[in-house]
Amino acid sequence: MEALDYHAEERRKAEFDVEEMKIAWAGSRQAYEISDRVSRLVASDPVFRKDNRTMLSRKELFNDTLKKAAHAWKRVIELRLSEEEAGKLRFFVDQPAFSDLHWGMFIPAIKGSGTEEQKAKWLPMAYKMQIIGCYAQTELGHGSNVQGLETTATFDPHTDEFVLHSPTLTSSKWWPGGLGKVATHAVAYARLITNGQDHGVHGFIVQLRSLDDHLPLPGITVGDIGMKFGSGAYNSMDNGLLRFDHVRIPRDQMLMGVSQVTREGKYMQSDVPRQLVYGTMVYVRQKIVADASSALSRAVCIATRYSAVRRQFGSQNGGPETQVIDYKTQQSRLFPLLASAYAFRFVGEWLKWLYTDVTQRLHANDFSTLPEVHACTAGLKSITTSATADAIEECRKLCGGHGYLSSSGLPELFAVYIPACTYEGDNTVLLLQVGRFLMKTVFQLGSGKKPVGTIAYMGRAEHLLQCHCEVQRAEDWLKPHIIVEAFEARSARMAVACSKNINKFPKQEDGFAELSADLAEAAVAHCQLIVVSKFIEKLQQDIPGKGVKRQLEILCSVYALSLLHKHLGDFVASGCITPEQGALANEQLRLLYSQVRPNAIALVDAFNYTDHYLGSILGRYDGNVYPKLYEEAWKDPLNETVVPDGYHEYIRPILKQHIRVARL
Amino acid sequence: MEALDYHAEERRKAEFDVEEMKIAWAGSRQAYEISDRVSRLVASDPVFRKDNRTMLSRKELFNDTLKKAAHAWKRVIELRLSEEEAGKLRFFVDQPAFSDLHWGMFIPAIKGSGTEEQKAKWLPMAYKMQIIGCYAQTELGHGSNVQGLETTATFDPHTDEFVLHSPTLTSSKWWPGGLGKVATHAVAYARLITNGQDHGVHGFIVQLRSLDDHLPLPGITVGDIGMKFGSGAYNSMDNGLLRFDHVRIPRDQMLMGVSQVTREGKYMQSDVPRQLVYGTMVYVRQKIVADASSALSRAVCIATRYSAVRRQFGSQNGGPETQVIDYKTQQSRLFPLLASAYAFRFVGEWLKWLYTDVTQRLHANDFSTLPEVHACTAGLKSITTSATADAIEECRKLCGGHGYLSSSGLPELFAVYIPACTYEGDNTVLLLQVGRFLMKTVFQLGSGKKPVGTIAYMGRAEHLLQCHCEVQRAEDWLKPHIIVEAFEARSARMAVACSKNINKFPKQEDGFAELSADLAEAAVAHCQLIVVSKFIEKLQQDIPGKGVKRQLEILCSVYALSLLHKHLGDFVASGCITPEQGALANEQLRLLYSQVRPNAIALVDAFNYTDHYLGSILGRYDGNVYPKLYEEAWKDPLNETVVPDGYHEYIRPILKQHIRVARL
Ligand SMILES: Cc1cc2nc3c(=O)[nH]c(=O)nc-3n(C[C@H](O)[C@H](O)[C@H](O)COP(=O)(O)OP(=O)(O)OC[C@H]3O[C@@H](n4cnc5c(N)ncnc54)[C@H](O)[C@@H]3O)c2cc1C
Ligand SMILES: Cc1cc2nc3c(=O)[nH]c(=O)nc-3n(C[C@H](O)[C@H](O)[C@H](O)COP(=O)(O)OP(=O)(O)OC[C@H]3O[C@@H](n4cnc5c(N)ncnc54)[C@H](O)[C@@H]3O)c2cc1C
Ligand SMILES: [Ca+2]
Repeated sequence: MEALDYHAEERRKAEFDVEEMKIAWAGSRQAYEISDRVSRLVASDPVFRKDNRTMLSRKELFNDTLKKAAHAWKRVIELRLSEEEAGKLRFFVDQPAFSDLHWGMFIPAIKGSGTEEQKAKWLPMAYKMQIIGCYAQTELGHGSNVQGLETTATFDPHTDEFVLHSPTLTSSKWWPGGLGKVATHAVAYARLITNGQDHGVHGFIVQLRSLDDHLPLPGITVGDIGMKFGSGAYNSMDNGLLRFDHVRIPRDQMLMGVSQVTREGKYMQSDVPRQLVYGTMVYVRQKIVADASSALSRAVCIATRYSAVRRQFGSQNGGPETQVIDYKTQQSRLFPLLASAYAFRFVGEWLKWLYTDVTQRLHANDFSTLPEVHACTAGLKSITTSATADAIEECRKLCGGHGYLSSSGLPELFAVYIPACTYEGDNTVLLLQVGRFLMKTVFQLGSGKKPVGTIAYMGRAEHLLQCHCEVQRAEDWLKPHIIVEAFEARSARMAVACSKNINKFPKQEDGFAELSADLAEAAVAHCQLIVVSKFIEKLQQDIPGKGVKRQLEILCSVYALSLLHKHLGDFVASGCITPEQGALANEQLRLLYSQVRPNAIALVDAFNYTDHYLGSILGRYDGNVYPKLYEEAWKDPLNETVVPDGYHEYIRPILKQHIRVARL
Repeated sequence: MEALDYHAEERRKAEFDVEEMKIAWAGSRQAYEISDRVSRLVASDPVFRKDNRTMLSRKELFNDTLKKAAHAWKRVIELRLSEEEAGKLRFFVDQPAFSDLHWGMFIPAIKGSGTEEQKAKWLPMAYKMQIIGCYAQTELGHGSNVQGLETTATFDPHTDEFVLHSPTLTSSKWWPGGLGKVATHAVAYARLITNGQDHGVHGFIVQLRSLDDHLPLPGITVGDIGMKFGSGAYNSMDNGLLRFDHVRIPRDQMLMGVSQVTREGKYMQSDVPRQLVYGTMVYVRQKIVADASSALSRAVCIATRYSAVRRQFGSQNGGPETQVIDYKTQQSRLFPLLASAYAFRFVGEWLKWLYTDVTQRLHANDFSTLPEVHACTAGLKSITTSATADAIEECRKLCGGHGYLSSSGLPELFAVYIPACTYEGDNTVLLLQVGRFLMKTVFQLGSGKKPVGTIAYMGRAEHLLQCHCEVQRAEDWLKPHIIVEAFEARSARMAVACSKNINKFPKQEDGFAELSADLAEAAVAHCQLIVVSKFIEKLQQDIPGKGVKRQLEILCSVYALSLLHKHLGDFVASGCITPEQGALANEQLRLLYSQVRPNAIALVDAFNYTDHYLGSILGRYDGNVYPKLYEEAWKDPLNETVVPDGYHEYIRPILKQHIRVARL
């Protein structure tokens, strides 16, 4: 019996080798094989079912999450999975859990800020999950402004301990994942106070709950902060609150990798440079960018497949209607998102390299690239997560009414994804940091200090401020050097314009404050250039497989030209391109959409997602959408009875005109 | 005892009479008084509590909705509320329910398409809710393309009946609100077939459930389509599915206001003009635009109040930190949304007038304005709902992490609002209709046919295609005629450019298809012009109250200039304004933000929303955010026990290294 495949015809149309594209997407054959194997493992395991998630109550959902996390850990041990494989397993289980914070924040925090002794003491326990940790930084009153945290850790020289305390309501820790119900330990951030002096915010390892009975230790108040966006989604996570009432911990539980408190209560910098902590930050942000490409590709996969199934209008002589993917509006909304998924994937890959590079430099005491790396990772985190959040919702809209059903998978995907715009740095706050870095770079241009890395192009500012775009025909826009120069010129001109406007203010700080919206826009321009450039650099590598590179070239052009169209004002108002060249770009874009069209289904197949991971009836691999939607509907609890509960109390009295006497 | 008011200082800053602004917002003193009274009535009634909504299971939520709907109806009868008051009551109960469709779609459909006899028969029952109706148009396979519906209504001359039938799975009705569990009747749309001839889609009144025991009548399969976006939100509604298996209804249950089937099965147009049905459409769309301003103003109210409470960074000498509303980025994201709320309110008000106007014309057999009215209402529905959906999510982001909590009210508001982008016409499909209308207008320009109403400016296309914007200094942008001309020129130039490009295609239809994305953009430009113009027209009226008009002028400028900034590419590339003029607009915008700032809280107070209606801890009138967030957290079911359910099965075995032997 042949398997049902409504997309077979679409798959036949593909002009490239899908299997090779899967490898290009995954990053390497090995990465592909691990992903493929682990995702199937998860998909075939009934414990990891998630199709009923939106119907569970908070308690049921949380219980289900604990079960999955335990089962996942069991499988990791039974199958002796490597760290990479274990990470993939958690990824494909696709349900936020305390363990994400344990592995993703608690352990890296100790690794990044602990001394060698601290690492030797705590990490082995953490690796075995004999303790479960969370990352407790944010408070009710302070998130973005970490330096404003109010929790105190006061050194008591009599007992050689720190006393952790929450002096105000707003100093309550608030948001840390895993804290609410599970974590036994936290890396908690607090103001270090020794001898009455405030040394600012530092990290401390604090035990929260007894390892015997899981009860909070004396002086600790801890709980869950309540429901969040959506049904299912991030409600599987026990984001928590925490108050300390004079909780004592030994002195050696302050993370002393970078600064220390001596037995006498003296505060000292260690000989390890402070900058080392930035390694962790780059690592975390690189992961967030990779997650953006995953979430985005997932939404795009659903919307693309459904757009090929969905037919609406345009039937001729009783024939089938037009697939909505054939409408140019649908293409102009969808294909740039498809291209962005690939663009973010490749810039994420490059960030992995950057992480290795910066780590090596840090260990060699070379801090020269840090400001640039800091700005670049902050900016990429910001623009990729913002774009992904918007894109998921656009994909939902692209599915018409049916996208609004939970069974489309898109509502949960949106709800679970969007906090990425806020955590690990609010996206606006991050853009402003990039903006400041850009201004600093511009202000230093005359000084002989040469900009490096992703900002190197500013060294050519003089040229970029007066260059003219060479485009004469639409196809000129396919040339990489033309694209790069246009994006460089746009970014340079916006940055320089900002700097000039700032200089008009008597106090520079006032200029920064007043023009911050412009700075944020300049930052976006700079970061989009980075993504475009890295995509183009990727294409300069050898990429095997029939037609694979060609498809990626098309997507790269779609990515760049759709950005150009969206931000046309930047390009034209700064004189980087003429209105006519803008119109030619738009024309080229339309031609590119026609080239993407026959390959669209194969391009999303290349993500290699199982139906389990996608979690969407609209995105099913086989395209068998309607019968499955119909089947799914009947599972709703409301359909357990034909006449709904409440009929006699609430509906019948209305119909029978008895409402005035009804007891409600 | 004085009431707590953390916003007291902000309220003192206001430079206008808030009470008078409340009336300007409501539209009239009478409308204000009704809203005010009814909203308090709802807020003070414990049955209408909604703060626990996101924690209810689907069944509990639905039961809660039935209860509220019954109680609302009871109050309507007890208090002898007018139709307007009853509508307001449902509005402030703020929980989608079957009754919305009964009053908002079922009754208007009969009113709009029924004969006088049909109205006399059905409406009295409907007004008393002796029957409860829904509007069953969309099917699993067809939404946007109404003409493609598959359900059939075949006339049987032997029995003088129609036989309603669902011939395929995709012909199942799918989405109608109230259908799933409650409605006793539907206006169902089906292809009318007489004598083997298909006369296209018509409406039929069909009884679905027994009035005795609420069981579906023979031949009818009906149920709920399952969970939708979010928790709470639209899940209170029983959007339903429906299949007909040869269901017979008397001939007089076809809505025969416009066309009829005789006893012999002859299909005839009635002498009432077809166009009359458009009245209903204008009515429904006007309501959707009004709802957009309500949803948007609600989100803006929450984000504005919280932005004045939230402080982050910028503490000097230990003083308080900066209110985030003082950051220019926050202002540049928030204030345009505040301005949009007012803009949509006023264009909604104008649409009410338009509805009256078009109704009068229709009855006087004057159909001349119909195409323009059709395009204008389609376009306004599209741009106001799209903008509102985006804005709610932006408001959520403006609240940082805490906006992600259900208790912020923003997640539910988003989830419940967004389908407005899809129902009553997918927003892209609607824009394309506007685009076609624009092209038709442009193509006819030479013909002597004068464009009327909102498209009248196209009559001055010749001038608009070559005019130059007069702005020389930033404050020139405050002049209404300059704004209007810039927006008219932009729209005219985009439309004319589209039409020229379309004419390059050998077949015009190919041009329409290929350039549809450009058409949609031109449509947006046209519709934004309408909103800007109507805001400006409003300001030409007498608006009483100290400072009220002045504030509205500021908001009008913010609305127009923020759009200009966002769509700068349109304006500059088409040569409507120069890049320098664009920069001046941006400069003026910044100055305007500073003028809005001291009035921001009062401007959202003017919406006159109760805390009940807002449903947001962040948006509380008194600004007492943190203690209430803390209190609310403890109500989560997860906090019922200190040690979570599942600890012994799932957490302890991990910590104790017993996971391999644990029974999961
Ligand atoms: C799902 C989720 C999980 C989380 N997990 C954790 C965790 O495990 N551990 C943990 O410690 N924390 C966690 N957090 C907290 C998160 O890190 C913070 O929410 C985040 O840092 C943003 O801070 P905030 O909420 O204070 O936003 P705010 O800073 O209050 O932002 C509010 C608004 O003010 C603006 N703003 C703030 N400062 C400025 C400025 N200087 N200039 C201009 N505008 C400004 C912002 O742009 C935003 O629009 C989590 C949050 C969420 C939503
Ligand atoms: C919450 C909710 C409540 C509803 N309530 C009711 C109700 O009470 N009664 C009722 O009858 N219906 C109801 N509906 C159904 C609603 O009217 C339809 O969903 C709506 O008309 C959109 O149609 P669709 O779902 O078929 O979208 P589709 O037409 O399938 O849209 C899918 C995609 O195709 C695109 N597309 C479609 N046609 C074209 C074209 N010609 N050109 C370019 N692009 C195109 C769209 O832009 C969209 O991106 C409801 C829907 C929702 C979500
Ligand atoms: Ca729920």
